[in-house]
Amino acid sequence: MGSRSEHLNQIGIVGLGLIGGSLGLDLQRLGYQVYGLVNRRSTLERARERGLAQSIDTNPSILSNCSIIILALPLSQIINPPEELVKALPENAVITDVGSVKAPVLQTWEKLHAKFVASHPMAGTHQAGVEAGQHGLFRGHPWVATPSKNTEPEALETVRKLALELGSQWMTADADKHDKAVALISHVPILVSAALLGTAIEEEKEEENTDITLAQRLASNGFRDTSRVGGGNPILGVDMVASNTKAIVDVLETYQETLEKIKQMIYSKEWEKLYQELNSSQEMRKEFIKE
Amino acid sequence: MGSRSEHLNQIGIVGLGLIGGSLGLDLQRLGYQVYGLVNRRSTLERARERGLAQSIDTNPSILSNCSIIILALPLSQIINPPEELVKALPENAVITDVGSVKAPVLQTWEKLHAKFVASHPMAGTHQAGVEAGQHGLFRGHPWVATPSKNTEPEALETVRKLALELGSQWMTADADKHDKAVALISHVPILVSAALLGTAIEEEKEEENTDITLAQRLASNGFRDTSRVGGGNPILGVDMVASNTKAIVDVLETYQETLEKIKQMIYSKEWEKLYQELNSSQEMRKEFIKE
Repeated sequence: MGSRSEHLNQIGIVGLGLIGGSLGLDLQRLGYQVYGLVNRRSTLERARERGLAQSIDTNPSILSNCSIIILALPLSQIINPPEELVKALPENAVITDVGSVKAPVLQTWEKLHAKFVASHPMAGTHQAGVEAGQHGLFRGHPWVATPSKNTEPEALETVRKLALELGSQWMTADADKHDKAVALISHVPILVSAALLGTAIEEEKEEENTDITLAQRLASNGFRDTSRVGGGNPILGVDMVASNTKAIVDVLETYQETLEKIKQMIYSKEWEKLYQELNSSQEMRKEFIKE
Repeated sequence: MGSRSEHLNQIGIVGLGLIGGSLGLDLQRLGYQVYGLVNRRSTLERARERGLAQSIDTNPSILSNCSIIILALPLSQIINPPEELVKALPENAVITDVGSVKAPVLQTWEKLHAKFVASHPMAGTHQAGVEAGQHGLFRGHPWVATPSKNTEPEALETVRKLALELGSQWMTADADKHDKAVALISHVPILVSAALLGTAIEEEKEEENTDITLAQRLASNGFRDTSRVGGGNPILGVDMVASNTKAIVDVLETYQETLEKIKQMIYSKEWEKLYQELNSSQEMRKEFIKE
């Protein structure tokens, strides 16, 4: 750790859930002094027991000596931060966040702090809460920063180095393009998947034509996979959708047009066209997923 | 095998792909004499090497002494069977099939053979071809028969005993209800999933607003799971859709209405309603999937 200057050794983490707790564990192992700020006393005790940071408190003044502070709060709280938190952030510290939607975060925080860097580390699990933090969560996963023309290059560089130390794949993108990409690969799949479950709910009402108990007994891999993310935490779902409304509605409309096109092929029994469509889908999936 | 009468020991399987080959392996182990009919010489040689049946031929006369014959062909061939196959089926044999759509199969085969039983063993893998057959494929999975008022009770009982010997969970259902259930849990998920990949293809064309390379680099579990079945074999996809058109269009329309309802909630920022919807989805998934 010799190459890191002394004052950079003090890192604050606001929130010690999945992302914040995992950051705390890895950063301590990397030799940092980690200060954790949490909301509730019960969380504080459990976070101390788990050793998620060396110092943990519910008082924002715990952040006063930190030179890097990571906002690891739910998206809605990052976008509407408590005033006492904003006041407690040292002027010279580099501030970054972990929210999965970037344009509204950037819009809020550019006004609040000169050294803010909007960023989004991708993590691979769906657990949440003080029990969820784990070592090595970021290793091999993308960490996307979305700098604007107002972002300080030195602040960006500080966050980049941190992300690389954690084993992330660093990349930068325009905030709007990031949000559109996330709408496509994360938020719209949730809605598309939830609508499949909603369809089952509707079909259940039509007892005469649909035997939902039979459907449940027959449910196989196709239904299992396609309905998985739609059956996830509804609070997180609403949080994401509410923060990325425009991009989601855009992508959802493209989705609806695509599905309508497929339905028309079926309706008109254009099997050759349907084959071409499904064949393109198969090709496209290979571009996304290496399995 | 003492309780099984002598002539029932001879079973014919038409097609030795995933389902047919797996049946051949298990039935031999259960003590049956298995006769396999295949289309091509190359398949015949490989099926013999793999020991998928004791006797294998490309000549339908191989079925002449069988008392049970299982049609394990692709759905389109079950619905439009070759004339020489139909002629080769002994009048006294019980005939069943393994197609995943039942109403059109029943419609075709009730006219062709008096002892036909429409059935659908559910299998848990997506491999295909002569290499795909494996032991124990049916164990623990549903095997649904869809008898009509014309189905002979003794023939149905013969197929039931066979399914139970293979470890399947036997059930019967009305053919139309079966097809609707399968549309919901298997066919519509393929289309819903393919449309997500089709959306990615459309977004790729809109370079200015969408960075598809970024989306591909960020693609995580949500996209992976939801796009899985849409990236499957397009020939199988078209085959299923073409055989179950009405039920699929029905369910797809319910799906489109459900998705539009969700989009309207987002559009009008009705977050409480969206929460209720996602919460119901979460509950409904538990009814389908025990994970």
